[in-house]
Parts: sequence; C-alpha cells; structure tokens
Amino acid sequence: MNFNKVLDNVTIYEAGKPIELVVREYGIDPKNIIKLASNENPYGTSPKVTSKIKEIAGNMFVYPDDSMYELKEALANKFEVDESNIIVGSGSDQILEFCVHAKCDSNSKILMSKTTFAMYEIYGKQTGSKIIKTKDDEHNLEQFSNLYKEHGADIIFLCLPNNPLGECLDKDDVYAFLETIDKDTLVVVDGAYQEYASFKDEKKKINAKELISTFPNCIYLGTFSKAYALGGMRVGYGIANEDIIKTLYKLRAPFNITTLTLAAAIEALKDEEFVTSCIAKNFEEMKRYEDYAQKKGFDYIDSYTNFITLKFGDLFSSKEVAQNLLEQGVIVRDLTGYGVNAIRITIGSNEQNTKVFKVLDEVLEKLK
Amino acid sequence: MNFNKVLDNVTIYEAGKPIELVVREYGIDPKNIIKLASNENPYGTSPKVTSKIKEIAGNMFVYPDDSMYELKEALANKFEVDESNIIVGSGSDQILEFCVHAKCDSNSKILMSKTTFAMYEIYGKQTGSKIIKTKDDEHNLEQFSNLYKEHGADIIFLCLPNNPLGECLDKDDVYAFLETIDKDTLVVVDGAYQEYASFKDEKKKINAKELISTFPNCIYLGTFSKAYALGGMRVGYGIANEDIIKTLYKLRAPFNITTLTLAAAIEALKDEEFVTSCIAKNFEEMKRYEDYAQKKGFDYIDSYTNFITLKFGDLFSSKEVAQNLLEQGVIVRDLTGYGVNAIRITIGSNEQNTKVFKVLDEVLEKLK
Repeated sequence: MNFNKVLDNVTIYEAGKPIELVVREYGIDPKNIIKLASNENPYGTSPKVTSKIKEIAGNMFVYPDDSMYELKEALANKFEVDESNIIVGSGSDQILEFCVHAKCDSNSKILMSKTTFAMYEIYGKQTGSKIIKTKDDEHNLEQFSNLYKEHGADIIFLCLPNNPLGECLDKDDVYAFLETIDKDTLVVVDGAYQEYASFKDEKKKINAKELISTFPNCIYLGTFSKAYALGGMRVGYGIANEDIIKTLYKLRAPFNITTLTLAAAIEALKDEEFVTSCIAKNFEEMKRYEDYAQKKGFDYIDSYTNFITLKFGDLFSSKEVAQNLLEQGVIVRDLTGYGVNAIRITIGSNEQNTKVFKVLDEVLEKLK
Repeated sequence: MNFNKVLDNVTIYEAGKPIELVVREYGIDPKNIIKLASNENPYGTSPKVTSKIKEIAGNMFVYPDDSMYELKEALANKFEVDESNIIVGSGSDQILEFCVHAKCDSNSKILMSKTTFAMYEIYGKQTGSKIIKTKDDEHNLEQFSNLYKEHGADIIFLCLPNNPLGECLDKDDVYAFLETIDKDTLVVVDGAYQEYASFKDEKKKINAKELISTFPNCIYLGTFSKAYALGGMRVGYGIANEDIIKTLYKLRAPFNITTLTLAAAIEALKDEEFVTSCIAKNFEEMKRYEDYAQKKGFDYIDSYTNFITLKFGDLFSSKEVAQNLLEQGVIVRDLTGYGVNAIRITIGSNEQNTKVFKVLDEVLEKLK
C-alpha cells in the first residue's frame, strides 16, 4: 500500500529502555534495576497525587472533562495568564506536534540546535519540512541567527535548558535573539526542565507570561513529567497568545488527557513544596556526579536539569559504557545516536547514585 | 500569524457535555445528574481494574512501558494475531488520526457515510482531503459503491455498528463490498461498538483476523471506552497487516498511553465476564426504550450498540427536547448538528432509565 511520501524519511523515536524490557532481556530482578535513562523524578509521586488517584480509581468508565476546566484554571493561576492562553497535551510532546502540524508542510523550514530533543526533528519530518541545524551541539545563538538570516524558518525550537545535553541559555540572550525574529516565525520555547534551571540560576528563568506578551510569536511549553514527577501520566501544556492556542486546538483530538491524569496534575500543582524539595535534592546529588567526573578525568556539561552528560572523549566509547551498565541493571542514555560520545545520566536518589558510582567504577575498570 | 491553510476548514469536535460542566452551568447537584450522552458503560469500571489502579497509583513518576509489551500480548491472544499486527492508541480515535495522516494529503479523497463518527471528517480536513459522503444517513453500500466508482478514495470509513445512529451492516455485505475495493485504498473498519453488535446478532460480527487476512488493505479498530468501561482512560487499538502498522507507528508519539491506562486495559481484558454481563443488561434495558418510543409514536433506529437514536419527525424539535432534558440534569446527545431531528441516548442502568422516562414524559408534555 502507498502512504504519504513524507513518511519515508520519518524515523521512530527510541525511548529510554523501560525496566520491564531490561527484566525481559537480561533477566535482572526488577528490584536491582536502576533506571536513570528518562530523566524521571527519583523521589516518586507526591503522596497527595497517589491518594487522589486511589480516591477516584473507580470512576474510569466516564470520559474525562474535555474542557479541562480545573486544570486550566490551576495553570492560569500559576502562570498569571488567562485560560484562553493555555492548551493541555499528552505530555508537552503533543503540543510540539500540534505546533509543527499547525505551521508546517513540505515547503517549510524548521531551525534547531544540532543536539536537542529528538522529537522536534521527528515531528518536522512528518510534515516533510526541511530541518536546519546549527553546527555546535549546544545552543549557539550566533549560529541560530546566521542560519535564520540565510534560510528563514517557520518554526524555531529553543530547548531551555537543553535535553539531552543540559546546558541553558541566559534569558537576556534569548530575548535579544527573539527581537530579531520575524513575527510570522513561531518560536517554541521548550521549558520541560525550566523548574530546575530557574532554581539553579535566576538568569536562566523564562517567565511564560512575560515571554508571550513581549514576543507574541512565542509559545512556552511546560511538562509534569520531570519536576512534577508524573512521567507515567502524560501531561504537559503550552502557553501562548489566544490565536495560536485556538489554532492548536484544531489539531487536538477530544479527550487527549485521561481522567486520572487530569486529577493527578491538579493535585501535583497543589504540592509545590514536594517539587521544590525534589529539585533541591537533585542539585545536591548532581554535585556528586561532577566530583566523580573530575576525579575520573571526564568532561561534563554544566547542567541546569535533572540529568548530567558525561563526555568520554578518547577515554571510552559511550556505547560500550552504556551497554555494560545496562547488563549490570543500570539504565542510562547513550548519546552516540546524537553523534556525541557521551552518556546522559538522570540524577537519581542518594542511594541510587551511590550504586551507580560503584557499578561505573567496575565497568570503567573493565573497559580500560 | 499565518498557519497551514488547510486548518481554515477544520472545526473542533464538540464532546458530550461532562457532568462538571452541567454542574457549573445549571447548578444541579452532581448526584442528580444522569449523563447518557457519551455512550459510556453505566455499570462502572470492573472492580479488578479499580483495584489494579489503586495498587500501582504510587508509581506515576516513571514513564510508561512504551513497548506496551503486556497489553499487545493480551490483545494478540484475544484476536489470535501477531503483536506486529497491533498498534495501541489514546482511544481508537488516535488510530483514526494516524490512518488519515499516513494516507492523506490535500490531494486525497475520503469516503464515508453521511451521518457517522464526526472525527473521520475532522481528521480528514486536517490534511485538506476532500470528504465524500453518501446521501443516506445510515450506511448504504450501494451509495458507497457508486461514489467509489465515480471518485475513488484513499480511505473509506465503515463504522460497524454506526455511531451516532446505531445501525449495523451485515458482515457478508461488507465483505462483498470490500471485494470491489482497490488494494491501495485503506478501509477503516471502526468496531468501537462491535462487542454489542456481535452479541445481538452473529451476522454483524467482524472477525479482525479474518478481515485483515482476507482484505490486506483493511484495518480493524477497537476500543476500551465502551463495553470495557474505560472511557476515562483513553485506550483503543488498530489491527492490520504489518506494513500498515509499521507506517502508523511513524506517526505515533512515544508514550501515547499512560502507565495506569496500560494497566487498566490489561486488567479489563482479564474480566470478560464483566463485559458480557454489561452487554446483556444493555440489551434488556434497550427494550424499554424501544417500548417507550413505540408508546409515544416515535421512530427509532434498530440499534446494535449501547445507545438508541429516537427520531422526532414532525412531533418535536430534538434540540428543544435535549435542552429541556439538560436543564433537568439528563444529558443526551442532540443530533441536529448532524442534520437529523433526533436524540441519541446511551442506554443507562435500570434506575437511570426509569428516571429518564419520567423526565422525558414531563419534557414532552411541556413541549407538546
């Protein structure tokens, strides 16, 4: 059967290996597996969320409230915007998808950093758009500017901070760049890890309300999957001016969020204390990874997220390191597929990280 | 900002009003609201599902198993197909979306019945495809054939049984029609209510395995939202030959199903007894609606689903009836928007239906 030609170029995103798969492939007891490959919050779900899910678990025969009234109200309060500025998606991923499909077709151009969130390119290719990437792995605004002047773009993706590398541009630099961008170019500011960046350094903080009122061609994306510890629930959001939101709504299927997910997100927003304490612990533990890298003589990227990227240079092959860790039940993300000889490790809990260092010691010794 | 021109023609699907909205708009106590507008299973969630959700509620910080190994295995067993023949979506809706985007662009044609599931047309318009509809409201294969001969089609949608009307074609007639269809036309057999149809009449039963092996250009869609009582959980599936599934996978975002939804669907498949008992009660209760309609002198469409369509002819305006019922806390679906002077009522529980008849009596008396 013939399908849309544009799909010929589409690759399928490879998610971090789930624990279930490692259990099946390597026969390791699930209790002994440490999964630090998907930047989940290692401190678990907020107890308030868990108790809400249990409370309403019997009500699953009813469709969700598709107006998402309560969640949108809570987000509107948090970000001091109107509900008409908000769209909720099955992860902020889904909002990315809406943006690309709303703006692009096979004549479009999409500008992004060389090494950034893989879904930007995958969604872009679904529309047959031309993907334009900077030369540097990390976000380099001068390169963005030059490419924009040369080619233009229908969408620009800025990942602030950047996944999978961890670096983050300063807000002032971002604003100076945005001043130079045409009002018909949609700029997607992906803030999936913004809670971490703004905790670590106020200069990195993007205020969604200010962003969209200063630059009406911007959309800010946030997620509940990271700091809010709801990766399993699939919920994120976009904040933008009403005309953008209204157009994205045309691409949203009804009931894109489950009843339990809506309830979980609403509860999670009530427990900011939990979120802040998780973020504080994250950066305490990250220090241990930085020390470890220094001790072993690896480079690492200064990270504004809940993960750290360790670069092996000529010392080791990241692919081999990741595979050996996997066989010991430690799941990390090898960045070879991104053209970088590095692994990305989610900062785990204190106990998890201690075990990671131990296993990593053994693996590096073996591969030396 | 300029967006894709094709979106100019896209309308937004209006979902059945959720109880929350009626509470807000009319100030009715939620306990007194009867929602029979979205064809949910009125007998609630299987207790096995509820207990599973409670058991794993604390694990929501971890991303779902994106391989969906267990659920796909359970579905493969149920339908006696291979796991490579299955794709799981956020409702079967999402599989519809994948089908349209995989096959269609602004040069494509989509053939469907005049009055059928609204999302076929909405997804079609997202791609700029030309929508071709039969003249009759109910599925009429002669009209399908004539239109196909005249225009051809990239996709044909068959809704078996049909939502929102309730009628269902015989399998033999469907097969005879499929014989005449070009192998490059994707035929989507939407079986969202198949469990009901095949319970009521063996002649309506579509066997997914037989369908896709006889007609490799067909995809069968099923859902957990109706008989399996998981409308709030958003999960459905497509069954087709491997090349079709592989292509649809290119359009699937990672983690399109939540962890709790995966677990709920797996549990629901273990409790077929619950499903069968719900379906049996559905048809017992439907008899009461048929009797009621006959008593009042309304036409109704013989239904193979969990809802019934009452046609008011010249007697009443369905819009007025629906609005008056709503103000009394009974939510039904007015079909005026589909060009039919009828209401679609989900068959509720015994107690709910008794109350519906009472309120309907009052409303009809008032509007006479």
